Amino acid sequence: MTPTVHPAPAGGAISDAALFALNDLLGDRLSISEGMRAQYATGEAFPDAYPPDAVAFPLTTEEVSAIARICFRHRVPMIASGAGTSLEGHITAPSGGLAVNLSRMERILEVSAENMDVLVEAGVTREQLNHDLRHEGLFFPIDPGANASLGGMASTRASGTNAVRYGTMATNVLGLTVVQPDGTIIRTGGRARKSAAGYDLTRLYVGSEGTLGFITEVRLKLYGLPEAIGAATCAFDTVGGAIAAVQQIMLCTIPVARVEFLDAMQVKACNAWSHLGLPEQPHLFLEFHGTDAGVKEQAELAARIAAENGGQGFQWATAPEDRSRLWKARHQAYFASKALKPGAVVWSSDICVPLSALDEAVTAVHADIATAGLLAPIVGHVGDGNFHVLFCLDPNDPAERGRAEAVYGAMIDRALACGGTCTGEHGIGLNKRSYLAREHGDEAVATMRAVKQALDPLGLMNPQKIFL
Amino acid sequence: MTPTVHPAPAGGAISDAALFALNDLLGDRLSISEGMRAQYATGEAFPDAYPPDAVAFPLTTEEVSAIARICFRHRVPMIASGAGTSLEGHITAPSGGLAVNLSRMERILEVSAENMDVLVEAGVTREQLNHDLRHEGLFFPIDPGANASLGGMASTRASGTNAVRYGTMATNVLGLTVVQPDGTIIRTGGRARKSAAGYDLTRLYVGSEGTLGFITEVRLKLYGLPEAIGAATCAFDTVGGAIAAVQQIMLCTIPVARVEFLDAMQVKACNAWSHLGLPEQPHLFLEFHGTDAGVKEQAELAARIAAENGGQGFQWATAPEDRSRLWKARHQAYFASKALKPGAVVWSSDICVPLSALDEAVTAVHADIATAGLLAPIVGHVGDGNFHVLFCLDPNDPAERGRAEAVYGAMIDRALACGGTCTGEHGIGLNKRSYLAREHGDEAVATMRAVKQALDPLGLMNPQKIFL
Repeated sequence: MTPTVHPAPAGGAISDAALFALNDLLGDRLSISEGMRAQYATGEAFPDAYPPDAVAFPLTTEEVSAIARICFRHRVPMIASGAGTSLEGHITAPSGGLAVNLSRMERILEVSAENMDVLVEAGVTREQLNHDLRHEGLFFPIDPGANASLGGMASTRASGTNAVRYGTMATNVLGLTVVQPDGTIIRTGGRARKSAAGYDLTRLYVGSEGTLGFITEVRLKLYGLPEAIGAATCAFDTVGGAIAAVQQIMLCTIPVARVEFLDAMQVKACNAWSHLGLPEQPHLFLEFHGTDAGVKEQAELAARIAAENGGQGFQWATAPEDRSRLWKARHQAYFASKALKPGAVVWSSDICVPLSALDEAVTAVHADIATAGLLAPIVGHVGDGNFHVLFCLDPNDPAERGRAEAVYGAMIDRALACGGTCTGEHGIGLNKRSYLAREHGDEAVATMRAVKQALDPLGLMNPQKIFL
Repeated sequence: MTPTVHPAPAGGAISDAALFALNDLLGDRLSISEGMRAQYATGEAFPDAYPPDAVAFPLTTEEVSAIARICFRHRVPMIASGAGTSLEGHITAPSGGLAVNLSRMERILEVSAENMDVLVEAGVTREQLNHDLRHEGLFFPIDPGANASLGGMASTRASGTNAVRYGTMATNVLGLTVVQPDGTIIRTGGRARKSAAGYDLTRLYVGSEGTLGFITEVRLKLYGLPEAIGAATCAFDTVGGAIAAVQQIMLCTIPVARVEFLDAMQVKACNAWSHLGLPEQPHLFLEFHGTDAGVKEQAELAARIAAENGGQGFQWATAPEDRSRLWKARHQAYFASKALKPGAVVWSSDICVPLSALDEAVTAVHADIATAGLLAPIVGHVGDGNFHVLFCLDPNDPAERGRAEAVYGAMIDRALACGGTCTGEHGIGLNKRSYLAREHGDEAVATMRAVKQALDPLGLMNPQKIFL
């Protein structure tokens, strides 16, 4: 994709004095090269490019604080980034300013097996963390697919395939270190599993998309690796059958660890990309965690429910390599979809609805996709009612993009009409700002703005994001 | 207990004009009688009395909004209350003003079995909700012991015995209706199981103790009633053995639904009050939820772990009446403790520490209690590291109270030193304000104050609470 590059604000957003001060602080960890700036202009799958004026690579919380003090004094916008895998333009710099990439803050500071928690710097990625934990019998389950940084995952309130059982970043962050716009360092939360001591600042910063401060350290809950893991696939005649099965699995309180829906087109894409050899029908991919007996019992009950809803061929993948192949294929849904249409760019949408509205939501978007003549597989974390439409678009066909936008808008309208959300896990960023007030109402958005004004009075933190 | 009644602020906090306007709105649902005001002066187990100037009983969110508009115009402090079971003086009126009791807002507005959620008015109590849900195969697990209102439980971020498995109010509220100080009504959250759309206002209001606005409606997650429930008691030779067993149960990821610790004195109290007939040793009370086979498997593993840590006589209570008797006895720990010492008042403290520090925390407070010559049983939700010391105090012995305060202060100091919290579930209220900054640091508390100032600029919502 060739992004549309937007010019920086007239005169730039960063003065020479600010640059000199940052240069004194960071030396060669400050860059103003065009190539480097271009890397922080877009983010994953985002069509516009807004390059920052400079890019900084701090190594410590104290250094982030020093950067913030300089930027605060010189009124320089600050845009945090990590692995750069966010999807809604979060890391772009539409007001110019300083991109602050935290990915060199990659130390795992403290693992406590006894307390099943870990303190990491913001730039540690989830794969790095789980690799480091592999001998502890512990893991961090939240898995948005991409190998995102944990600071970024906290900032966007990420979730993914395991959220149906283990929750989201909102429920798995115990505490944060935050650098405020003026450089003040605060610590939120603590090591207790719960607290009723004052306002829940942790959850205010989680999901705030860098608009209130820099998240520099994250303390996370960990979980014991399950004794047994079982995965399975199941084909359904209809989308409705697959979704009815999910609803009943949830109602029966089967503690399913993952339950992913793939429509027939997504299965076709994954077959071609990952050689899965599955029938090209709607599918559920499931995973169960527990004891040997528990996993067997969960899976038998799920298989029975699936069969009662037209599910055929509940296929087991118990060997680690088979499970790994299955989930790798699931995680590569994006690339698999892209490969369906040579030269395409993929625009991944993200809504979340109450389970009772899920069948209708998917069915309606299928009809809209067909009417609009689009290629757009659907895949989702359906235990939570969350799904994605992966619009495969010709980058040189603005009319096609327009049709996709219409489908996307209608999909969000329907989600909001049934009490759902315009984003289950991607965040608002630049793309979904127009939906924020439609989802929450003007008064609630005014309340969010009042919080923003209170904590970032100069509007320096990730400007133009979340709010129109 | 005879509370110390503090005089209202000179001249009162409520003008005649405000009273007339409120009277026009509410008629006989506004009271200025001394008897009624006295009921809103203390709250459970709180030693000081600060009566409000008047008490209002609204019936709808719109009426709360109209009350707020009047109070905002006339600068009248507003103090929300529900069942009155909070323990840290939350509902008292140290600045005078209007007590707004929401307990007549007791409608269950919408139960969705398909989505496993419910929308209730703030005054609905947890027992009322579960009674109403009993034929739906669903329940709301959060159980702080007292039959609190769900609005109040949201306000104080309540948790209790089931939190180890089902989480706290912070993780089980999907959305809120909030009346802001000027009467503006906002809705937070939604019906989707997760969302990344904007700041998490829901979790900002949950635990804000009425200092930011009135919570008038709460949407809650519900859970399927487990197919099987098993409960058990187990005696230990030592406190350390019981706590080591809890740590290992958590590390083995046994999804225990409840794991409660009672020290020998608490067992003695419960034996006398509830005729449990247990050996007067440290005990764990456990509960397991799942399938028949799952409960059996969980319990066998827990029993093995208990035995390895000196646990004897893992006693089952599978019959519903036996389980009910056990948990009723547990819930009456407060009254049982009170009965240990005729005429005593019970002051219930509440700290929460990382599991690795729990044994030391309990052992140290046991030593302090002995040194101070106090009678103070200990009971706790130890799967979360949360425990209570029930100081049984002679109301006419200020020296004894002083010794208890010293023990309590040392206990919190130790909790904070290991990364724990000064309150796991009771909240800050008036009692724990001095610990807030010690726990979170001045900078984080300044951030909380900035949020308070932004959302309640006139300082009318539950003044003097949380912040010193």
